[in-house]
Amino acid sequence: MRPSIVLFGDSITEESFGEGGWGAYLANHYSRSADVVLRGYSGYNTRWAALVARRAISSVSPSAVAAVTVLFGANDASLPDRASAFQHVPLPEYQDNLRAICAVLRARWPSAAIILVTPPPVDERVRVRYPCLGDASGLPERTNEAAGRYARACMEVARQAGFRAIDLWSRMQMFPGWETSFLRDGLHLTPLGNRLLFEEVVFALRDANLSLEALPADLPLCSDIDRDNAVDCFQFQQQ
Amino acid sequence: MRPSIVLFGDSITEESFGEGGWGAYLANHYSRSADVVLRGYSGYNTRWAALVARRAISSVSPSAVAAVTVLFGANDASLPDRASAFQHVPLPEYQDNLRAICAVLRARWPSAAIILVTPPPVDERVRVRYPCLGDASGLPERTNEAAGRYARACMEVARQAGFRAIDLWSRMQMFPGWETSFLRDGLHLTPLGNRLLFEEVVFALRDANLSLEALPADLPLCSDIDRDNAVDCFQFQQQ
Repeated sequence: MRPSIVLFGDSITEESFGEGGWGAYLANHYSRSADVVLRGYSGYNTRWAALVARRAISSVSPSAVAAVTVLFGANDASLPDRASAFQHVPLPEYQDNLRAICAVLRARWPSAAIILVTPPPVDERVRVRYPCLGDASGLPERTNEAAGRYARACMEVARQAGFRAIDLWSRMQMFPGWETSFLRDGLHLTPLGNRLLFEEVVFALRDANLSLEALPADLPLCSDIDRDNAVDCFQFQQQ
Repeated sequence: MRPSIVLFGDSITEESFGEGGWGAYLANHYSRSADVVLRGYSGYNTRWAALVARRAISSVSPSAVAAVTVLFGANDASLPDRASAFQHVPLPEYQDNLRAICAVLRARWPSAAIILVTPPPVDERVRVRYPCLGDASGLPERTNEAAGRYARACMEVARQAGFRAIDLWSRMQMFPGWETSFLRDGLHLTPLGNRLLFEEVVFALRDANLSLEALPADLPLCSDIDRDNAVDCFQFQQQ
């Protein structure tokens, strides 16, 4: 049975199959051994995600899901008195919602590895160039400090529940110039930011015994086919 | 029920989630409305694909597959007296194998649109720079003329069975400079070649009533959410 890896999250997940996206990298990485299933919902916070989680994953096979990434928080962390206030979710509720989402995933896929991912950092100097809804305050709708609080809260949920986690907020800021290297609009990821997230997810999957080496190819690789008796390699495959 | 689009084929399918790949483009295009499922087997000809077809698709949900692309022939068309002879399949058998593959797909997914895709053209002047197995003959293992015969045979199978088809071999050669614009090694696709194939597949899917406009988004788009009563948009979604 070829396993699946489900990506559940906001716009950073929804656009993960765009040019140089981390979801496409994953699908290519596991092209012969696992399916990567996209469940990304641009603009969603955890309040809305918790309401729709069951429906969002209802069409994913219940049997073969080996891992699921959960990446929410960038919208929850929108400031409550700025232009994206409608997406804001208070910090304690963010944690409760994350737990509720993970409970839905755990109930449907009891043996899947759950990998929480924090929101990325925010470059406020760039965010003010993207005024929401004609907001003319000159103030960013998100701050890096707020994103950091949600990132730490996310890590705390993962620690308490024993889930794997990727602290994307901290990891990106280890690199000088992260603001432009990893973020294209102060919030969403550049191809290099996508590459970093891909590598972190591969690392977490390896920790969950889902490395490329640990997963068998679904069918013989061309390099393993006996050139003189090629068909023999497939006889056992017939059903 | 979110539908699936399955991509079944050889290396041109297997690597379709690489940088700028046509599979990743499709997954991004349908990010909110359909799953794109990769079943690509590098080096495979139709003889081997027919033997493994049932197993290859056994882990794909039987209920929700709306379309499947079938792209084989580049390996079948390897010349029988050159370095890739072990991949060669005679033309009449290629047609029989394609029919057998489509019968397996049709039996599992009776209502899915089957879209046959011909092999791409071959640039022999470049292929000789990729000698297989230490072949020192200086002769290419594939020719454009042979690929063309398999492409026409593929189109004939589609016409006889009433399947949709994409004549990639002819389509690419309509553009001057196709050899370098669309092919990176005389055989596999450049990002521009991937883009052309993506557009052809989207066109065929539209013809099968599977356009982006025809498929509903799985959950409310952020732009449709009432900012003053956001949660109300999701109440009906609860199960």
